Amino acid sequence: MGLTIGVDIGGTKIAAGVVDEEGTIRDVHKVPTPDTAEGIVDAICSAVSGAGKGHQIEAVGIGAAGYVDDKRATVLFAPNINWRHEPLKDKVEQRVGLPVVVENDANAAAWGEYRFGAGQGHDDVICITIGTGLGGGVIIGNKLRRGRFGVAAEVGHIRVVPDGLLCGCGSQGCWEQYASGSALVRYARQRANAQPENAEVLLSLGDGTAEGIQGRHVSEAARRGDPVAVDSFRELARWAGSGLADLASLFDPSAFIIGGGVSDEGELVLDPIRKSFRRWLVGGEWRPHAQVLAAQLGGEAGLVGAADLARQG
Amino acid sequence: MGLTIGVDIGGTKIAAGVVDEEGTIRDVHKVPTPDTAEGIVDAICSAVSGAGKGHQIEAVGIGAAGYVDDKRATVLFAPNINWRHEPLKDKVEQRVGLPVVVENDANAAAWGEYRFGAGQGHDDVICITIGTGLGGGVIIGNKLRRGRFGVAAEVGHIRVVPDGLLCGCGSQGCWEQYASGSALVRYARQRANAQPENAEVLLSLGDGTAEGIQGRHVSEAARRGDPVAVDSFRELARWAGSGLADLASLFDPSAFIIGGGVSDEGELVLDPIRKSFRRWLVGGEWRPHAQVLAAQLGGEAGLVGAADLARQG
Amino acid sequence: MGLTIGVDIGGTKIAAGVVDEEGTIRDVHKVPTPDTAEGIVDAICSAVSGAGKGHQIEAVGIGAAGYVDDKRATVLFAPNINWRHEPLKDKVEQRVGLPVVVENDANAAAWGEYRFGAGQGHDDVICITIGTGLGGGVIIGNKLRRGRFGVAAEVGHIRVVPDGLLCGCGSQGCWEQYASGSALVRYARQRANAQPENAEVLLSLGDGTAEGIQGRHVSEAARRGDPVAVDSFRELARWAGSGLADLASLFDPSAFIIGGGVSDEGELVLDPIRKSFRRWLVGGEWRPHAQVLAAQLGGEAGLVGAADLARQG
Amino acid sequence: MGLTIGVDIGGTKIAAGVVDEEGTIRDVHKVPTPDTAEGIVDAICSAVSGAGKGHQIEAVGIGAAGYVDDKRATVLFAPNINWRHEPLKDKVEQRVGLPVVVENDANAAAWGEYRFGAGQGHDDVICITIGTGLGGGVIIGNKLRRGRFGVAAEVGHIRVVPDGLLCGCGSQGCWEQYASGSALVRYARQRANAQPENAEVLLSLGDGTAEGIQGRHVSEAARRGDPVAVDSFRELARWAGSGLADLASLFDPSAFIIGGGVSDEGELVLDPIRKSFRRWLVGGEWRPHAQVLAAQLGGEAGLVGAADLARQG
Repeated sequence: MGLTIGVDIGGTKIAAGVVDEEGTIRDVHKVPTPDTAEGIVDAICSAVSGAGKGHQIEAVGIGAAGYVDDKRATVLFAPNINWRHEPLKDKVEQRVGLPVVVENDANAAAWGEYRFGAGQGHDDVICITIGTGLGGGVIIGNKLRRGRFGVAAEVGHIRVVPDGLLCGCGSQGCWEQYASGSALVRYARQRANAQPENAEVLLSLGDGTAEGIQGRHVSEAARRGDPVAVDSFRELARWAGSGLADLASLFDPSAFIIGGGVSDEGELVLDPIRKSFRRWLVGGEWRPHAQVLAAQLGGEAGLVGAADLARQG
Repeated sequence: MGLTIGVDIGGTKIAAGVVDEEGTIRDVHKVPTPDTAEGIVDAICSAVSGAGKGHQIEAVGIGAAGYVDDKRATVLFAPNINWRHEPLKDKVEQRVGLPVVVENDANAAAWGEYRFGAGQGHDDVICITIGTGLGGGVIIGNKLRRGRFGVAAEVGHIRVVPDGLLCGCGSQGCWEQYASGSALVRYARQRANAQPENAEVLLSLGDGTAEGIQGRHVSEAARRGDPVAVDSFRELARWAGSGLADLASLFDPSAFIIGGGVSDEGELVLDPIRKSFRRWLVGGEWRPHAQVLAAQLGGEAGLVGAADLARQG
Repeated sequence: MGLTIGVDIGGTKIAAGVVDEEGTIRDVHKVPTPDTAEGIVDAICSAVSGAGKGHQIEAVGIGAAGYVDDKRATVLFAPNINWRHEPLKDKVEQRVGLPVVVENDANAAAWGEYRFGAGQGHDDVICITIGTGLGGGVIIGNKLRRGRFGVAAEVGHIRVVPDGLLCGCGSQGCWEQYASGSALVRYARQRANAQPENAEVLLSLGDGTAEGIQGRHVSEAARRGDPVAVDSFRELARWAGSGLADLASLFDPSAFIIGGGVSDEGELVLDPIRKSFRRWLVGGEWRPHAQVLAAQLGGEAGLVGAADLARQG
Repeated sequence: MGLTIGVDIGGTKIAAGVVDEEGTIRDVHKVPTPDTAEGIVDAICSAVSGAGKGHQIEAVGIGAAGYVDDKRATVLFAPNINWRHEPLKDKVEQRVGLPVVVENDANAAAWGEYRFGAGQGHDDVICITIGTGLGGGVIIGNKLRRGRFGVAAEVGHIRVVPDGLLCGCGSQGCWEQYASGSALVRYARQRANAQPENAEVLLSLGDGTAEGIQGRHVSEAARRGDPVAVDSFRELARWAGSGLADLASLFDPSAFIIGGGVSDEGELVLDPIRKSFRRWLVGGEWRPHAQVLAAQLGGEAGLVGAADLARQG
C-alpha cells in the first residue's frame, strides 16, 4: 500500500520504478528510449505497466526535461524530444488508468533529495544538478516551488556573463555554459591545447589529443593530480560557487545540494565550490551561511522524487 | 479597530503612520532622523507614540534597510546606520508596549504593493525598488519569502558582470551598480563627457558640467528628448530588463512591479525595461510571460507594507 | 613599365589583376576557386598567367587569409584552405617565373588603402576590414608593420569579452565575434526573435523567420528604418568603436579606415562607430583624435595592395 | 664625451642622472618633489644642474607620466601633476641651456630596457611596467613608437572587461585595473576577507585586517606559500598574460619585457604570466611565440632610457 511509480526519461533508457513511502525503490522496469516523440509516450506507458505488474499502484509521476505547465499536465517545450505543448498527463492517464503528474526532471530530483536524501530536515533548500547541463529545483517552506506558470527554477539559464557564450536556449552567457559537465570538458580541452606539458595524464587517458578529452578523463586525471584537470575543476567550481552566491542572495536557503554526474567527484569538486561560494557570498560575515552538501540519491533522485510528488497529488 | 503602525526610516525623516486594514494611512507622525544608532531607536519610539496618540493600535511594523534576522527581531547589519546585531524589536517593544515586527524595507514595500497596490490579485510577484540603489521583495504563494535566515530577496547584489564595478557590499559586478539611480547618473555623466554636443539640454539643467549632472536632470532632459539622457535611461533599462529575465528564470512570477524613484518616470523607463526583459527572457515563445507593472503606492509602500505585516503577526 | 600583379583569393573566385604604379587595375583575370589546397596553387598560377598575357610584369603579390611568415614566403596557417606551412612563394615563383611576395590579405588591403585610397597622406594609419570576419592592417611610419614573425595586426582576435563567445580561432571573446558581419546577423536574428513586432521590414525581406535573416537584409532594412535592423547596426558599432578606442590607446594613429562589406553602408555604420569611438577613447579631451574614415577602394583594396607590395619588393 | 642627463620624476624624489653611451649612470643628483606644478619645473632644473656639475652634457631627457605631444616638448596631460599643455621642453631648455627631450616615462623605461637591458638584440619588443599602475612602451623596427600624436603605447587603458571597474582615466574595465600592483592588493584583500583561514601568513604581516594588507605583504606572504597571496598573484598573472596575448595579436613582437615593482618577484609572477600568455595566445601552435622576459634595469630604466633618447635627438 502507498506505492507509486516514478518515471525517468533518459537518453538511452526510460526507467519506471515502484517507490514506497520511505522512498525505497521496490521494483524497476526499463525500456529503450525510442526516437520519436510519440514512441516515447508509448515507451513510458510500457515501462509503467511493466514495473507495476504485481503491485498496487496509486499514481504515476513522470520527470521530463523541459518546461512543464503549472497544472503539471503539459510539456510546453522539451529540449531533446519534439514535444511542444504535449498533453503528456492526459495521454498516459488514458493508457495506464492511473492518476499522472508530470514534473520537470530537475524539480523531481530536487524533491527526491529533499524528501529522502541530503535535504531531509531542511525547510528551504535548493538542489543543483550538474550533469551535461545545469538544472535545479527550489524548495521553500517545505514546498516545491514551480512558479506561477510552472517554469521556475531554471537555474542553468541565468545570465552570468553579458555577451557570453551562446547557449542552446538561444540566449548568451547562461550559467550552464560555465558550470556544467560540458563546460568542464571545454575547460580541459582549451587548457590541454595551450599547455600539453601540464596535461600529460589527462591526454594519456583519451586518444592523446585535446579534442579527444571526455568528462570521465578529466575526473580520473584530476584524482591523479594532473594540473590541467585539477585547474579545470577549479574553474568549474569558481563559476558554480559564484552562482550559488547569487542564489543565496535571492533565496537564502539553509542548504544547497549538489547532485549530477560532476558531483560524483565528491570533495574534489565540492571543496572548491564551497570556497568560491564563500568568496562571492554577499554580506558574508553578517549573515548565517547556507551549507553546501553532496546529493545522496545519485541518479535515482529524479525517479524517486517523481514518484513521491505523484503520491502527494 | 484593526489599526497598526508602520515605520519608515528615511535618511532625513522617520515616519510612523497609522494604517487600517484597507491599507489607508489614517495618521502620520514624522521626526527628524538622528545621527546616532541609539538616537534612531529613540526617534522611532517617539514617532510611534506620536502617531498612535488617540488611536487603538494593535502592533507596530518597522521597515529597516539591511539584513533582518529570521525572527524579524534583530537587525543583523544595516548599511547606513551603525546597527550590528541590533535587537530592535525588543528595544521598541519595551518602550512602546506593543508587539513589534521588524522587516527589511524593500520587503515591506513589496508587501505593500502586493496587498494594496499593483500586486493585488497576484499570488507570485516580485517587487523591484529602483532608487539610489536596487532592492526587492519576493512574494510566492501569497507569502513574503524571507529565506531561512531572513536575508532573501537581496536582488541588488546578484552578480551580473564578472570582475565588474565595485559595490558598497564588498563584491563586484552587482546588479545594483548597473540598474539603479546611481547607475543612471553615471551613464549620463560618462556620455555627456564624451559627447557634450548630444547632451545640451541635460548639461543646461545643472551647472554645465558632466560632473554636475543629477538624477533629476536626467529625468527632465529625457522627457525633453535629450539624446544622452534618453540613451542613459535605455542603458539602465537594458540592465534592469536582463536582470528581470534572470529572476523570471528562477522565480517565474506572474508579475514584476517596478517601484522607487526611477520608476516615477513611468513608461519612459518601463517600456524599454519591458523590451529588454523580453529580449533576454529565456524560452520566450514557449512559456507564459510575467507582466512588468508600475508600482502604485509610491514612497508609502514601505510604511503601509510594514504596518500590514505587523497586523498579520 | 612598372606593372605588377596582385592576387586576391576569394571563396568562389581567384582574381589576378595587373596594376600600375598609380594603383590602377589595367587588366583582370578570374578563375573559379578549386576545392583542394594544391588546386588553389594551380589556380593562382593560372590566373596570374592569364592576367599577365601581353603585359610586362615585374612581380606578383598574393594576398592570403591566415598567417604568413616574416619572409612573406610561407603561409603558416590558413583558416579556410588546408595550408599548413605552405611554401606558396616558392611554388608560384617556380611556376610563373616572377618574383612573388605573399602577404596576409587584410594587410594587403590596408596597404592598398594607404597608398591609393583613404589613407593617402597619413603616415600612421590602421585599416579595419569588417566583412564576415574582422581583419586589419597597421601602417606606422609609412611602413606596413608585420611584427617580428609576420603575424601582427590580427585585430579581430584581441579579447574584448572575458569568457565570451567561442571563436573559430579557438579562443573566446574575440573582437571579431562582436564587430563583424557575422555578429551583425546574429544581433539581428536574436532581436527579431525576441521582438518580431519591431522587425517587420527586416523579416519581410527574407523567408519571414529570424533564422532566415541575412546580412543584406539587415542593411536594406536599416536603410528603411526597421528598428531591429537599426539597433543591430548600433550594437555592431558599439563594439567596433570601443575596439578602435583600444587600438588608439596602443597605436595612436592619425586615422582609422573602415573597409569591408559592412562599411558599404557608409554613414549608417560609420556615424555610430565614431560616436562609440569617442565614447570610449581614453583621455579624450587631452589628446588629438584619430579620424574614422570610409575605405575608398572597396573590394579591390587587397588586390591593389598586394600588387603594390610586390612592386616595393 | 657623449654624456646626457636623464630625469626621473618620482612621487617623493626627482632624480637626474648623468648617463654615458653604454647606459651607465656616472652621477646622480636627487631633490625632493615639490607640491606645485611650477615647483616641479624648478626642481627638475635644479636636479639637472646639480647632476651636470663637472660633466660635459650634450642633452637632457625627461621622463614624465602622462601624455607628451608628438614633438616631445609639451606635456598634454599629467595624471599626478597639474600640468595641462605644459611647455616643459621650452621651460627647461631656457633654464639649463641644453637641448631637452620630454618623453612619457613608460616609453623611456621601455627604451632603456631595449637599449641596455633585457631587450638588447630584439628589433621588436614591448616593455610592460607593472607598478601601482600599468604602463608600457613599444619598440618596432628598432624605433620607439609614439604614434601620430605622441600618445601611443597606453597599454594600461585598453578595455579588458566591458562594464568593468572604474578607472582613474574615466573609462571602465581598463587593463590597469586588473593587472597592476593596485589590483594585486585588491585581490588579496577580497580573498583575505572571504577566507581568512587561508591568509594567516598574509594577515600576520600587516595589522591583522584585510584592509591593512599592502603590496609588500602579498609578496612576502606569497614567497612563504600563503594560499591567498599565491592565489592573488595567480589572478594578477591571469590578467597580465591574457593582455600580453592581445598585444601579441596586434604587434607580434619577439619579446615582452616585464618591469616595475611587481616584477621584482621574478618567477613567482613571471611563470604564471607566461602560462596565461600561452593559454590565451591566438593561433598558438601555428606561429612563433614571443618570449616573456624579466626587466634588468629595475627602477633606473626610465632615467637611463630618457638620457639615451636625448642623445639620439
